[in-house]
Amino acid sequence: MSSSTPIPPGAPTEPPKTCKVILADTIAKKMLAEVQSTLSAIQLPRRPTLSAFLANDDPHAYQYAEWSKKTCEEQGFSFNLVKVDKESLEEAIIAANNDPEVDGILVYYPIWPTNQGHQDRYIQETVALSKDVEGLCHTHLFNMYHNVRFLDPPTNLKKSILPCTPLAIVKALEHLQIYNPILAYGNRLYGKTITVINRSEVNGRPLAALLANDGATVYSVDITGVQLFTRGSGIKALRHQVVDKPDLTLNDILPLSDVVIGGVPTEKFKVPTELLREGVVCINFSSFRNFDGPAVKEKASIYVPSIGKVTIAVLLRNLVRLIANSPRQEGTSDDAQKAREGAFKDD
Amino acid sequence: MSSSTPIPPGAPTEPPKTCKVILADTIAKKMLAEVQSTLSAIQLPRRPTLSAFLANDDPHAYQYAEWSKKTCEEQGFSFNLVKVDKESLEEAIIAANNDPEVDGILVYYPIWPTNQGHQDRYIQETVALSKDVEGLCHTHLFNMYHNVRFLDPPTNLKKSILPCTPLAIVKALEHLQIYNPILAYGNRLYGKTITVINRSEVNGRPLAALLANDGATVYSVDITGVQLFTRGSGIKALRHQVVDKPDLTLNDILPLSDVVIGGVPTEKFKVPTELLREGVVCINFSSFRNFDGPAVKEKASIYVPSIGKVTIAVLLRNLVRLIANSPRQEGTSDDAQKAREGAFKDD
Repeated sequence: MSSSTPIPPGAPTEPPKTCKVILADTIAKKMLAEVQSTLSAIQLPRRPTLSAFLANDDPHAYQYAEWSKKTCEEQGFSFNLVKVDKESLEEAIIAANNDPEVDGILVYYPIWPTNQGHQDRYIQETVALSKDVEGLCHTHLFNMYHNVRFLDPPTNLKKSILPCTPLAIVKALEHLQIYNPILAYGNRLYGKTITVINRSEVNGRPLAALLANDGATVYSVDITGVQLFTRGSGIKALRHQVVDKPDLTLNDILPLSDVVIGGVPTEKFKVPTELLREGVVCINFSSFRNFDGPAVKEKASIYVPSIGKVTIAVLLRNLVRLIANSPRQEGTSDDAQKAREGAFKDD
Repeated sequence: MSSSTPIPPGAPTEPPKTCKVILADTIAKKMLAEVQSTLSAIQLPRRPTLSAFLANDDPHAYQYAEWSKKTCEEQGFSFNLVKVDKESLEEAIIAANNDPEVDGILVYYPIWPTNQGHQDRYIQETVALSKDVEGLCHTHLFNMYHNVRFLDPPTNLKKSILPCTPLAIVKALEHLQIYNPILAYGNRLYGKTITVINRSEVNGRPLAALLANDGATVYSVDITGVQLFTRGSGIKALRHQVVDKPDLTLNDILPLSDVVIGGVPTEKFKVPTELLREGVVCINFSSFRNFDGPAVKEKASIYVPSIGKVTIAVLLRNLVRLIANSPRQEGTSDDAQKAREGAFKDD
């Protein structure tokens, strides 16, 4: 029967919209409700407090800090935005480490140009583990890369902290049902091919590792080339492995990808829409739009244009977890135990 | 860090099992609970009754009929298994059409060899539309192929009946979360590539159509070759379109497929495991095992070895729907209305 056949009665007269645009707000709201519920189980005699250190002059970082402050305060947290010279940053962080009124410490990166050595990395290590709300201290990073989910094995009451933006994207993928809850916990991305465009140490690389640890085949792309993160054939390995793929380019891997995640910090870069597969899921976490909005909506099944609000929700979630993990909560009440076990089962 | 690094404390010491085997029973139980809930809303002064006609000597059909009878009776339905000669079948069906104590009619196909003309098709048309529990009458088939979901547009209270095995597989894919509920109803398979190996008129072809109508890219395979069922570029079409793919074979399409569904009625056929992609979802609806069990479990993320029990649950679901659609239920009570609107929103 040709497509010029008259439409029979009751047949759909127009197809439902093919692309679902999911705003970060939708995902963030769900998480903030969880944060509130956990917070109410913690008996802290004052507002939980985050100190955020801004030592660069990136206007995006400043704007993001302002948004974070607004959300924090709306949610009943204190947010101290501390602007500080690069040279005074270490001292300021040490003071915050020692301040019992500060529960979590956040630093806006990058601070120093990457060609000037590993100074950002040094600052990350300066933050006390018990206040590392961004999950960037070595112990937290080590646990993430080794697929270790608790700080206190074998008791397993204190969940390790994961970096905010990567975890925000994991939470987005859970919300979008790309994680399949039918599969065993830890394998819920098995069968999914995901491209992550960005391999920074704070965002793209940990993200690729988290997704591969959960069973995905992950192509990690930056200007130096393509790497493949997987748990090996049949996801038999206990944690991800990384191999260079010098023969592959974005052009080879985009058509294979169920999910494409863009995090390229420049206006100039756009994911070539014509290479995306129909029905792809696209997520942008760059401050710039890595996807060509109108075109991608003709090709994708789901498009998440930004992730910032989810990242802020994760920040508060991590902060509440740090408080639940802290010694003052230990043994104090069933509530702290509940806070540790309750709302946050899944990462 | 090499893979010979000692495992750190708290790291997983063995990966969770990679393949989840889902038994038909699990899916069927959920559906049977829905059936019971709808049935309790229908005020029928006797047990709902299904007449099943067995006019072939296929031992699988007989076994399947016995199972069906058992489940029907357990669920509070009457099941009359009528063994009849091919030559008396039409008359027996007409008698059942006219019997007010019979609510639904089922016939075991195939009856006549396909090279002896269209006699099976003739029998399907003999069954009264109002008792066509298998959804094989022309009106039901027409609606399915045209993506028309109601019998009474624009009132849209009477849902059209869908063939049992194809609908059972749709229900299985919903249970397995391959249908993504985040997407618009009618598009929930967008982005999924599915291979269906079987293109019979009662199973494989309607299944390919249903899946493509819901947004999937479907390769339909039988011994005559490969056809592609889709709603066109960007799933813009209102219903599926079919094109022949004479250049493609199973070897080309298996590595592309997120889901592989086998329905080949012979012991000899096995899907070549080495061509499946890692993390594939495999469903078998043949009476024979189309997948090599141990091997497929090393490659698939989900494996459903049989679907028969879900098909029986769908049969009862369709029967209850026929009763809810019937004139004696019209306007009688809010209950009938609830039965029509309530439990069965989604197909």
